[in-house]
Amino acid sequence: MIVYASLVHKLPVGVLGASGYAGRELCALIARHPGVELAFASANERRGERAVLGGREVTFVAPDDARLDRAALVFSALPHGASSAWVTRAREAGAKVVDLSADLRPGSGSTMAAPYGLTELEREAVQSADVVANPGCYPTAVLLALLPLLVRGLVAPGGTISVVAASGVTGAGFTPRHDLLFAEVAEDYRPYAVGNTHRHLAEMTAVMRRLGSDADLIFTPHLLPVARGILATITVPLAAPLADVLAPWREQYAGEPFIEVVDSVPALRDVVRRNVVRITAKPVAGVRSPTLLVVSAIDNLVKGAAGQALQNGNLLLGLEETAGLPA
Amino acid sequence: MIVYASLVHKLPVGVLGASGYAGRELCALIARHPGVELAFASANERRGERAVLGGREVTFVAPDDARLDRAALVFSALPHGASSAWVTRAREAGAKVVDLSADLRPGSGSTMAAPYGLTELEREAVQSADVVANPGCYPTAVLLALLPLLVRGLVAPGGTISVVAASGVTGAGFTPRHDLLFAEVAEDYRPYAVGNTHRHLAEMTAVMRRLGSDADLIFTPHLLPVARGILATITVPLAAPLADVLAPWREQYAGEPFIEVVDSVPALRDVVRRNVVRITAKPVAGVRSPTLLVVSAIDNLVKGAAGQALQNGNLLLGLEETAGLPA
Amino acid sequence: MIVYASLVHKLPVGVLGASGYAGRELCALIARHPGVELAFASANERRGERAVLGGREVTFVAPDDARLDRAALVFSALPHGASSAWVTRAREAGAKVVDLSADLRPGSGSTMAAPYGLTELEREAVQSADVVANPGCYPTAVLLALLPLLVRGLVAPGGTISVVAASGVTGAGFTPRHDLLFAEVAEDYRPYAVGNTHRHLAEMTAVMRRLGSDADLIFTPHLLPVARGILATITVPLAAPLADVLAPWREQYAGEPFIEVVDSVPALRDVVRRNVVRITAKPVAGVRSPTLLVVSAIDNLVKGAAGQALQNGNLLLGLEETAGLPA
Amino acid sequence: MIVYASLVHKLPVGVLGASGYAGRELCALIARHPGVELAFASANERRGERAVLGGREVTFVAPDDARLDRAALVFSALPHGASSAWVTRAREAGAKVVDLSADLRPGSGSTMAAPYGLTELEREAVQSADVVANPGCYPTAVLLALLPLLVRGLVAPGGTISVVAASGVTGAGFTPRHDLLFAEVAEDYRPYAVGNTHRHLAEMTAVMRRLGSDADLIFTPHLLPVARGILATITVPLAAPLADVLAPWREQYAGEPFIEVVDSVPALRDVVRRNVVRITAKPVAGVRSPTLLVVSAIDNLVKGAAGQALQNGNLLLGLEETAGLPA
Repeated sequence: MIVYASLVHKLPVGVLGASGYAGRELCALIARHPGVELAFASANERRGERAVLGGREVTFVAPDDARLDRAALVFSALPHGASSAWVTRAREAGAKVVDLSADLRPGSGSTMAAPYGLTELEREAVQSADVVANPGCYPTAVLLALLPLLVRGLVAPGGTISVVAASGVTGAGFTPRHDLLFAEVAEDYRPYAVGNTHRHLAEMTAVMRRLGSDADLIFTPHLLPVARGILATITVPLAAPLADVLAPWREQYAGEPFIEVVDSVPALRDVVRRNVVRITAKPVAGVRSPTLLVVSAIDNLVKGAAGQALQNGNLLLGLEETAGLPA
Repeated sequence: MIVYASLVHKLPVGVLGASGYAGRELCALIARHPGVELAFASANERRGERAVLGGREVTFVAPDDARLDRAALVFSALPHGASSAWVTRAREAGAKVVDLSADLRPGSGSTMAAPYGLTELEREAVQSADVVANPGCYPTAVLLALLPLLVRGLVAPGGTISVVAASGVTGAGFTPRHDLLFAEVAEDYRPYAVGNTHRHLAEMTAVMRRLGSDADLIFTPHLLPVARGILATITVPLAAPLADVLAPWREQYAGEPFIEVVDSVPALRDVVRRNVVRITAKPVAGVRSPTLLVVSAIDNLVKGAAGQALQNGNLLLGLEETAGLPA
Repeated sequence: MIVYASLVHKLPVGVLGASGYAGRELCALIARHPGVELAFASANERRGERAVLGGREVTFVAPDDARLDRAALVFSALPHGASSAWVTRAREAGAKVVDLSADLRPGSGSTMAAPYGLTELEREAVQSADVVANPGCYPTAVLLALLPLLVRGLVAPGGTISVVAASGVTGAGFTPRHDLLFAEVAEDYRPYAVGNTHRHLAEMTAVMRRLGSDADLIFTPHLLPVARGILATITVPLAAPLADVLAPWREQYAGEPFIEVVDSVPALRDVVRRNVVRITAKPVAGVRSPTLLVVSAIDNLVKGAAGQALQNGNLLLGLEETAGLPA
Repeated sequence: MIVYASLVHKLPVGVLGASGYAGRELCALIARHPGVELAFASANERRGERAVLGGREVTFVAPDDARLDRAALVFSALPHGASSAWVTRAREAGAKVVDLSADLRPGSGSTMAAPYGLTELEREAVQSADVVANPGCYPTAVLLALLPLLVRGLVAPGGTISVVAASGVTGAGFTPRHDLLFAEVAEDYRPYAVGNTHRHLAEMTAVMRRLGSDADLIFTPHLLPVARGILATITVPLAAPLADVLAPWREQYAGEPFIEVVDSVPALRDVVRRNVVRITAKPVAGVRSPTLLVVSAIDNLVKGAAGQALQNGNLLLGLEETAGLPA
């Protein structure tokens, strides 16, 4: 026999910038969350419009009409540059904040006190914070893959880590651009920001430096003809061969609910619509210097954005870290 | 006013293994070729069946019914392992041969005299040959991208070249496998042969060694949810910075009809259905060792298989190298 | 504050034919169901293999090793023709059965007592049954769309209903066939069984006749380059114009948890991964005879197969009809 | 031996509205045409930009900078409403015109003398015209399918023809709209303009009336997740059963270079990138009134737009009707 007790209280949370892909994903996750409920969803250009997100109807409001003061927590999915001012407003209204923009992240130059919400790295700092800088999608996939090597000093000193990553088109946002039209993206695949010019690079490098690594990083993103998902294929020169290749990840992430260290090779299909990162590493045969090939995959909208934001939000609100998150 | 002179003679050519993706592409190219015509198309499991390829109806015959003696040239698109015996039979029947399988390629261990049909590298050897080993699809994309650096000794001595390549599913052949079904491939992306275990690696390394390079090569292929195309993203450590990054390619490939050296970044869309390789190179910013990011793209069925085979076939037959090829 | 009571008992259910698309979907739904748990999953050709379905690892067994006697309910997703014998075996072992094959459906000629599990039509019969014939995917989409018109006698006497339906490729099963390969299906779209030759026609016509309709039915299915979903576009000649076009559906389906009658036009995107049918109807302008255009959409693997099977299974087991079903 | 005589003269043609999908397709076809060459390509918002179309580099000019007087023929691919004024300007400058917009088509209300460029219907009128109204993409697919029945009076008097058609997204134009983004279209399929509200309906009905048919027409278009192609599935009530179902089409279209009447069922794959319509018809089994299911497929950008425009342009210029067209 099954008995569900009825829900007594849900904590009110708001979403700024709710009509983009990350914002809508957040609203959908909140709709199914057992402990929070949507207080408002702002979308300036679509204010007054309705949408069904996670099975619940939402009416978008103008940001200025968002009752920040009624939210225990505000998620800002506003564009880079526009977000930090709203973080301040939400804080002044008494709400805690998870900022999904790049405004407060490492490498941004921001001086606002906000731990970096790569939860598995900064869990304690997040738990005691008022504002969290939610990581970028690519940095989430790359840093969680590299973290066990970096903190153990296993990367060859002075070595160069080469990351080739590929993302589904929702990573480019819900912007109507010619190059994101179906007929342009289907049957295509292409790199962009070639030569280390992507804005996520500073975020990744800053975190690597904090972790004591001096490795160089080359990051080459690609646009995939899929809606969701990021897969990073990472070549790492090692200081020395590893006897047990997966040991650093298994140790680092023991007990982590959202990290899957696997023997098989991750694919987008394994992770879409889930708040997980899936990681493997393989030694590279036939080369003189010990080298690892590390592969990680996430859903860019879940673990790479809205899911991780909610994971951090759960911690800020004192809820179970896993509440409402699809693992 | 336009006048076309009528065609006096077309040379008869045959295709063994004509029902796979490469074989069908070949038949289609032959159908539109001004100087050759299809003498036979064999497909053992589909013998007796008809197909329309390149606008012409073809009836597949059993290989044993193929009139090798009536063909000036035979293309073998038979599976690896099964092909070399048919190369010998075709030669004994008096035909020249382009072998699309891996059987005779560098790194295969074969002792049959057959130049490697990377045409832009081995044009003269091909012109005077009777049998040509047509390159693999990935090696075509990778070696044409690296060639100008390798022959000029521009790669850092003892350096490691890391290739991340992605291919459309026709690269896996016309085999009905679960993992190649539409519903499995759509919205997915994944690496395979991770850790330098792909069979094309030996072919690439053997050619690199012939060119005097001792660089290590790491090759990680991926499966893309597209029908056609290969794009290779290559990290190359340089011996020294290059003043003019594209100069090696522009020099090496001046006048080449099927090589496009470009400033922009290649995409699959630029090359599908064309017998070209499109290449760019960019210096990598923010790293201590001089490094290039080289990107190349081909259609795996055209420049990566049937198109290059016909390019070699044209040379074997004394025709214009570009005849019948979509550039 | 939230309190969940712990689950005391889960009822054991088995799945025969668990490695196909419908079988795997069923296992995934069962894994997340609050009231049932997987007793076995058979897959003859893949016996001994493991798969992760709905987050739980499953090891496939041979059908002969399936402990039918330990299951309160057995779902048979075996192929048409092979299923009915296993329905009998499962019944003899004491289990109730939901048969997803066509073997026992209306129009099949079967004499086994098994109500037709179009739940919204036959709910009471299902509740008191031991065996249920789960509807086909196309018939689910078509019959739920037509039901309110048929039972009210609103179709023009002697009229012809024309159904053009399109299905994602999982509807063709997990069979490795040339014509289902990614490179064959992508960028294509085609009708099949043109001229009323599809085997689902007899099922639909038989149910129409039971409902007292003598209308002719023309059914033309199409293969879509998507993984999941069926959308039916139905032209219906009316006996007389309707003042309130949607009223028949709103009346018929008031309170139904899995039927969405909408003013907007359904799209696959609205229904995938959900156990719902979404329906609208629009009067046709500019024609002399009153005519409706009815559109319905389902996920072929959920409401069109595994979801509806579980909906029926819930009723057979005395559970909440909606338990474990994504609406 | 092969001899090509050199080309003595190419006729200059211009393209207005060259940056959309139809305009670019036209430029690409012109680039490969043996008898015409591009005089200008206008694209107001992209003036000054370059593009490679059909292997030739094109620089877009502002429409006001287009040298209409230097073109023997102008193709207008300008938006509906904006096109007819430019048709007049081009005529005043002495050029013949093919107008791809709806401005001059049957049902548009235009009084300008311009035959309807459904070439196979109006060949003689086109040959002696100065301006041609190029048909819409859906009307091309539908009218060429119905023509043999309509002109022979084979449709049931007072009958209703129901057309369900599906188009790739290039049919919606190169407009950056949210609903045309890759992530919105992929894995989706949906009808639009349900209830006979599509603007192409008037064009189709007007032509049917000219041909003496009083049949009602129901037209329901759908958006497909493919880049190119239209497939129409048409239910036609017959006045009487046909002994030889395909005979009307085979008679009507004997010798037509761009019409393929086939026994098999057309698919998009058969027609993309080709200037053809592919048609079949099948009798419908199991219904009381004699009924045909007619299926036709075209590439919406070729036979449905740029290809047919060039076919008409060839006639206007006195060239071979098939010149430069991929059949």
